Amino acid sequence: MKNILVIGSGRSAVTLIKYLLENSVKNDWKVTVADFSLDSALDAVDNNVNGRAILFNVEDELQRSKEIKGSDIVISMLPASLHVTVAKDCIKFKKNLVTASYVSNEIAALNDEAKNAGVLLLNEIGLDPGIDHMSAMKVIDDIKDEGGEITSFKSYCGGLVHPDYDDNPWNYKFTWNPRNVVLAGQGTAQYIESNSYKYITYTKLFERTDIVSVLDAGEFEGYANRDSLSYRKSYGLHNISTLFRGTLRRRGYSEAWNIFVQLGVTDDSYKVENSNTLTYRDFINMFLPCDSSISVEEKLCIEFNLSVNSTIYKKLEWLGIFSEKKVIIKNGSPAQILQSILEDKWSLAANDKDMIVMQHQFEYIYKNTKKKLNSSLIVFGDTPRFTSMAKTVGLPVAIATKLILEGKINEKGVKIPTSKEIYLPVLKELSENGINFVEELV
Amino acid sequence: MKNILVIGSGRSAVTLIKYLLENSVKNDWKVTVADFSLDSALDAVDNNVNGRAILFNVEDELQRSKEIKGSDIVISMLPASLHVTVAKDCIKFKKNLVTASYVSNEIAALNDEAKNAGVLLLNEIGLDPGIDHMSAMKVIDDIKDEGGEITSFKSYCGGLVHPDYDDNPWNYKFTWNPRNVVLAGQGTAQYIESNSYKYITYTKLFERTDIVSVLDAGEFEGYANRDSLSYRKSYGLHNISTLFRGTLRRRGYSEAWNIFVQLGVTDDSYKVENSNTLTYRDFINMFLPCDSSISVEEKLCIEFNLSVNSTIYKKLEWLGIFSEKKVIIKNGSPAQILQSILEDKWSLAANDKDMIVMQHQFEYIYKNTKKKLNSSLIVFGDTPRFTSMAKTVGLPVAIATKLILEGKINEKGVKIPTSKEIYLPVLKELSENGINFVEELV
Repeated sequence: MKNILVIGSGRSAVTLIKYLLENSVKNDWKVTVADFSLDSALDAVDNNVNGRAILFNVEDELQRSKEIKGSDIVISMLPASLHVTVAKDCIKFKKNLVTASYVSNEIAALNDEAKNAGVLLLNEIGLDPGIDHMSAMKVIDDIKDEGGEITSFKSYCGGLVHPDYDDNPWNYKFTWNPRNVVLAGQGTAQYIESNSYKYITYTKLFERTDIVSVLDAGEFEGYANRDSLSYRKSYGLHNISTLFRGTLRRRGYSEAWNIFVQLGVTDDSYKVENSNTLTYRDFINMFLPCDSSISVEEKLCIEFNLSVNSTIYKKLEWLGIFSEKKVIIKNGSPAQILQSILEDKWSLAANDKDMIVMQHQFEYIYKNTKKKLNSSLIVFGDTPRFTSMAKTVGLPVAIATKLILEGKINEKGVKIPTSKEIYLPVLKELSENGINFVEELV
Repeated sequence: MKNILVIGSGRSAVTLIKYLLENSVKNDWKVTVADFSLDSALDAVDNNVNGRAILFNVEDELQRSKEIKGSDIVISMLPASLHVTVAKDCIKFKKNLVTASYVSNEIAALNDEAKNAGVLLLNEIGLDPGIDHMSAMKVIDDIKDEGGEITSFKSYCGGLVHPDYDDNPWNYKFTWNPRNVVLAGQGTAQYIESNSYKYITYTKLFERTDIVSVLDAGEFEGYANRDSLSYRKSYGLHNISTLFRGTLRRRGYSEAWNIFVQLGVTDDSYKVENSNTLTYRDFINMFLPCDSSISVEEKLCIEFNLSVNSTIYKKLEWLGIFSEKKVIIKNGSPAQILQSILEDKWSLAANDKDMIVMQHQFEYIYKNTKKKLNSSLIVFGDTPRFTSMAKTVGLPVAIATKLILEGKINEKGVKIPTSKEIYLPVLKELSENGINFVEELV
């Protein structure tokens, strides 16, 4: 019997744990689910005979080393900053580790140690990062293997509300960490277009969107992610002319969100004193010029040259930002206050489902002919608990874990899933689980 | 004979040192000028019999303690971050210290130690901070002493080119640290207006300017400084309705500068790889959308809805940003690259002079009547070396030093010049040196 230790049983881990438990009998697995909340771990294990739920504190060295030592493989679904503690124990006790998080500098620094110990620390094998790497690398390797030369690669991904539950003027709900949505894009986006570095500063980001059409899901708009440049190295696309990664929203989202950006209410760098004494309306007014002769609504319209009949204004008004409702955050940053206002309106309702949309757009030269190929994915959530996000993050982690236990993945050191050894079998089984990319020659 | 140690003989110290040397015979002073560059120290001492120029390294503990120990008072004109090393030795050897810099957290933390040692660490006694504090406090105390209640205080200051040498479309030249000019306003400006906190985010800052008319110097525009709130405490204006501090430029500057802000070229948070292979034109193009069918000039005009005949466009073009000249900075941040481009055009010519403009605007209630009072200052530079900046920074430092040596200032601990004991005699002697505020009831 193989022991699998899953640390963290939060929203993104539920499908992962379900898969492991469902496959535990035929594979002879024991699945330990360790969480800071025993209730959460118990919920995830759901009385499965091969499951074991434990209360777990990753800072408790004794418990941590005991559990890791007793396992055959470890999966960490903790917040990214906590992986390194787990990773060090995995090296010490020679256990492989799987995570869905970006390789941090701290994790990258463990590469030699992990190799020397014969341990694989496999990261970035969730959705984004994860499925994006694997599906892109499959197309990239296919084109290269046939002698094609890739000149342009653009890749977009978004977590959105399922179309059947898309019932607000923003066509958006929080299906993932709301804080990341509020802070999205801060800094400067960097990418390459037609062999030239391009920079988009935060306050231009939501103005410079691309229109992206994905299969029968309709049209979206994509804004640039912060870092596209590092993908040259990860994907072996060193001399590519155009390389761009972006985030998808439904059309019209960005121009309305841009008002918040321009106003400065997404700022997380300072606190508003006694913010809990303010109404939503007061809060917005703090960012507008002082003029007691006109209303907050009028000031906002003047500042951004908006009409009250515009779709932008209607989106803002629908959020209740002009209401007399009290801010619930005390001494919060503008971003924290805005998040609390948005959570009133953008939280998923009890029966809502979510949706994941991804599209890779390739341009390449094959036998002196220019070709365009799109590879697209749409995944819907099954239930409010088993969301498309939990599915697309959790299944690749689960499948990779199985493959490692079966001895089918033999890499060592700190890795991401860009090699055929990993992505071919993982993509194959994802496809058997309904996660299928559709390729179209455009 | 009293020994005065002046550490740092850069641009801002020349008038200070000149004053000390000119007054050295009648006061029986020996003035040691210590600088990392012996030439700079020698230039400042200018063969004066009571002067002594030394090569000095503030990191050399032996030399530092020897010089501080042998002095009766120390003036630090070093970069602000280096004051703390000097201040600690001043406490150790019980010597008073004068600087023109803001009180840093590190300096503030020395308050108790300094008091216990009977030492005064007097800071913020240059121009801004310095003359602004003293001249504002004089009016504030006068109004309060007569029973008035201050309801609004706005204060503006700017370092600009002398009108006779103002010969470019920006009506601006670098008369001070160019880097600070390029980075000015980053973050969020905070102030109070009509009893409400107000926040202006960086990308709105140069759009929301006030028009300020100063005596016969004409009109200026003022944009908000980052922090106005802390002045409630420093100036004892705890319940004031409106408190605003701003920076002055000639009219039209801000709307043109705003283009750089909006484009993102003032960003100092990342480096542009191999920036020295770019032309000025390439650099600007990196921040504009990709479109090879139109020129960089056309793209900029479209992006900001500018006509080539507009004053904004003419200002930008005059700077040479569309030229094929090569960037001289290697791997520079956008802000560093922009600074180097601006230095081509905005540096003071050999004979140029500068100008300081300051205005305090008070509103107060006196015997149930609303009153408005402006207190304004204009100072012109004498020569390209003895600038108005060197004069207004250096003279208050020199005068305060004299007063401390004469036993006329007896405060201890970490101080700024907001008390009558300091500001009354300093302002009096500044006035004798031609630095006079003009008060007008509006």
